Amino acid sequence: MGAREPVLIEGRWQASHDAGGDFHAFDPTRAAAFGPAFAISGARDVEAALASASAAAAALAACDPERIADFLSAYALGIEHDAAELVALAHAETALPAQPRLAQVELPRTTGQLRQAARAARERSWTQPVIDTDAGLRSHLAPLHKPVLIFGPNNFPFAFNAVAGSDFASAIAARNPVIAKVHPSHPATSRRLAQIAHRALIETGLPAGALQVLYHLDSELGLKLAGDARLGALAFTGSRAAGLALKAAADRAGVPAYLELSSINPVFMLEGALRERGDALAQEFFASCTMGVGQFCTNPGVVVVPRGEAGDRFVAAAAERFAQAPAGTMFSHGVVDHLLAGVAAWREAGARVVGGGAPAQGEGYRVQPVLLSVDAAAFIADPRMRGEAFGPASLIVRVDGLDEAMRVAQALEGNLTGTVYASDGELADWRRLADALRPRVGRLIDGRMPTGVAVSAAMNHGGPFPSTGHPGFTSVGLPAAIRRFAALHCYDHVRDAALPAELRDRNPGGLARCIDGRWITDDIGAQA
Amino acid sequence: MGAREPVLIEGRWQASHDAGGDFHAFDPTRAAAFGPAFAISGARDVEAALASASAAAAALAACDPERIADFLSAYALGIEHDAAELVALAHAETALPAQPRLAQVELPRTTGQLRQAARAARERSWTQPVIDTDAGLRSHLAPLHKPVLIFGPNNFPFAFNAVAGSDFASAIAARNPVIAKVHPSHPATSRRLAQIAHRALIETGLPAGALQVLYHLDSELGLKLAGDARLGALAFTGSRAAGLALKAAADRAGVPAYLELSSINPVFMLEGALRERGDALAQEFFASCTMGVGQFCTNPGVVVVPRGEAGDRFVAAAAERFAQAPAGTMFSHGVVDHLLAGVAAWREAGARVVGGGAPAQGEGYRVQPVLLSVDAAAFIADPRMRGEAFGPASLIVRVDGLDEAMRVAQALEGNLTGTVYASDGELADWRRLADALRPRVGRLIDGRMPTGVAVSAAMNHGGPFPSTGHPGFTSVGLPAAIRRFAALHCYDHVRDAALPAELRDRNPGGLARCIDGRWITDDIGAQA
Repeated sequence: MGAREPVLIEGRWQASHDAGGDFHAFDPTRAAAFGPAFAISGARDVEAALASASAAAAALAACDPERIADFLSAYALGIEHDAAELVALAHAETALPAQPRLAQVELPRTTGQLRQAARAARERSWTQPVIDTDAGLRSHLAPLHKPVLIFGPNNFPFAFNAVAGSDFASAIAARNPVIAKVHPSHPATSRRLAQIAHRALIETGLPAGALQVLYHLDSELGLKLAGDARLGALAFTGSRAAGLALKAAADRAGVPAYLELSSINPVFMLEGALRERGDALAQEFFASCTMGVGQFCTNPGVVVVPRGEAGDRFVAAAAERFAQAPAGTMFSHGVVDHLLAGVAAWREAGARVVGGGAPAQGEGYRVQPVLLSVDAAAFIADPRMRGEAFGPASLIVRVDGLDEAMRVAQALEGNLTGTVYASDGELADWRRLADALRPRVGRLIDGRMPTGVAVSAAMNHGGPFPSTGHPGFTSVGLPAAIRRFAALHCYDHVRDAALPAELRDRNPGGLARCIDGRWITDDIGAQA
Repeated sequence: MGAREPVLIEGRWQASHDAGGDFHAFDPTRAAAFGPAFAISGARDVEAALASASAAAAALAACDPERIADFLSAYALGIEHDAAELVALAHAETALPAQPRLAQVELPRTTGQLRQAARAARERSWTQPVIDTDAGLRSHLAPLHKPVLIFGPNNFPFAFNAVAGSDFASAIAARNPVIAKVHPSHPATSRRLAQIAHRALIETGLPAGALQVLYHLDSELGLKLAGDARLGALAFTGSRAAGLALKAAADRAGVPAYLELSSINPVFMLEGALRERGDALAQEFFASCTMGVGQFCTNPGVVVVPRGEAGDRFVAAAAERFAQAPAGTMFSHGVVDHLLAGVAAWREAGARVVGGGAPAQGEGYRVQPVLLSVDAAAFIADPRMRGEAFGPASLIVRVDGLDEAMRVAQALEGNLTGTVYASDGELADWRRLADALRPRVGRLIDGRMPTGVAVSAAMNHGGPFPSTGHPGFTSVGLPAAIRRFAALHCYDHVRDAALPAELRDRNPGGLARCIDGRWITDDIGAQA
């Protein structure tokens, strides 16, 4: 183990001003620390990051969007250039497979997302210009002129990393500085990404203070930072307990908090669908639940299955797969503990194991996938049943007919997704369940597992509280995700030359603008 | 004084279940109670309103938007039909002039706003449909499926009334039930409006539970209601202290809170503008400050004026007008007290009165407009100077040159508006100040007083915290204001027949939709 790695504050890599201690990455396959020491930053690092990011806000907001796009593109290119090294680092820190997950899926997703953000920054549709020529008013979404604090999660070392993921790309596309609190379970990966980002900032001439990177804070200091009124917004992906504590701190300071918290992603199976292809669905469900050792926000945590023969066959087929499943390696000791506690809570509330869940053999953070089952009445009666067990664990809920399935749906909290599988003959039942799920989920899915989250303009990776902190926004999908980090700015009778480019009479880029009620790409006054 | 007026809960006018007491309207010109008794509702009324509104949410969300539009139009027509009576009631309860303010300005603004909301509900551009045909994803903004709790302010008995104003029209246009906590300073006006609204609900076949009306709650019960997780959102217009307390309660429950709080609406006068037309500007400023006895959120509370002869002449001309101004009648004893406390705080911090502010003669809630002055250093040094004095009071801040004006700008908190007056030769200085104000205000105004708030699609009646609770939204201007009361809903591979109308392949209404990156009005698949 070498010397302590520097933090990125005040525009440069430097030794922590006041590390309160060190930490190391852990190799999940051996449950052993490895690699260099990283600082647990103290209050002086935090203040330096806040002050430097705040000082960079005005210059970044005034940047030509082309330069923002250049940075995002250069960063993507830099990640691709160092892809092999990044994949090796992330694999060592997370035990996620280098192939295909990290190299073929997550890394290209991350660079693709950065390039989509570059395009969005350049074309500026996220600003949603609205012009009322009669009233002399012009409005658009604009930079916050304040830093965005991002807490990254453990489960995507690239695609949701606080220095590279959707929150980062969105905040920068809106021309806001980022204070990245990366996840301490993959510090070396984050350090390497941040080096590439920092170099790209310098090369493209953006303010170096546009990115500050801290590896770890004790929770008290994290809450203090989240509650600093100099922040423009907070973005967090992770556990409900941590997220709600940060939200409370941010709320008190008037800082909008965008959270992506726990979700059990209910999947409803209708009888006809199971009769038609129950075995295939059992495989589809098993694959979705165990992919990435279940470490996805959109993991199918609850599967609602009718009583009777078709349901029994589905459960048996799924249970068999869980029973046969090899143990997988999770990210950390904490993640394993949290999973086991969630499964124990289900069992205490009356669920029973129907497949898998054998004590894992060998070293490392290993768990065997596990499938449990409970009847609907117990699921509805006991809120412990509706807690998240983050990882490769799902709870089958057996229901007597559609009415009971409806009651299960109505008992659900806010979730990111909700799915109903139906045969073509069950459209009426599909609709009843979908209507019950609709207000409780961000993404309503017809006959597909929820795990995949496409980076699409029409994606909603969001949902009602407590799955997120605000039901009107998504954390994935551009340009929509950018709007979280924007302020509405109105110009009242301001002369043309002093307006932002997208609000001027001339519209050389052909941006769609809502002018006097119509979305058009015209100049203003061309015909006048 | 007659029997106690009924509350509107559970879909009908009925006696309060558990009034903890009564209150009456006050005639501001006599400082005397008059009219019928109104209930101070207790916990049972609140629970009945919540339960009934929640029960109505699904049916309202599923309503044909045409029917919502019919209701909003019928309500507007009903208000016009009873205009004379409404104006008389509001005049008696607020002392606002019946002519022109209530009859010619505020009432038509209110009915116009309801009709704009009807159009917005019908044409549905607020839903912002986004479709990705490749990914099979379709998203739009949709009803919250939960009630919106609206706290109305004292200063607009029609246009911001919780049963008739922008928050109401926006929440209903988004097909959410409303729980209206009207302002107790104009209960009879609110009762009459609510009767018209209730009748229109019944006549147009909307669920009667779509509107619940309570007149008054003690503050503890108000906080309990605001913190109920059954709410979809909270909208509040009023004082900072009350608004932030409600926001804290809502935040804890995960309920988005949209606040419109105090704002001092800084106005910067540049030397050249004062040299060109200082006397006219003094009159413009005086009129803006004293209009409606200063009881506007966008009242110019701070005017920054350069030292030297042009500035002295402006201040003298303004001071003369304040000194000559007749006393005006404010809404309530509490409003007068709050104003006098605000002015006293300025004086304690070192400001001196330069015009007006004589003790008011005669009965009623009367005050003479007052103008104070202070130097920039004292303004910057003492946060008491930046407190709001809601009413006909302004603070002149004298500055030495642009640099000191910039420091004043930089000392400001978030505000609804910021204004700079400049001559044509001062564009560079205008821009420097505008750049400093931009991140601190919602609406940046070039050479006009801030008081007028046009109901325009391009309006922003919002701004950075603490002028509001979220910088990305406006409370005035349709369809933008509707989006506060919406959830983002995504459909993933959902069959066409099960999609909401605005996301289906066929687009018979010609709604602009973002399809595969372009805002177009086409059907999908017409060419395929």
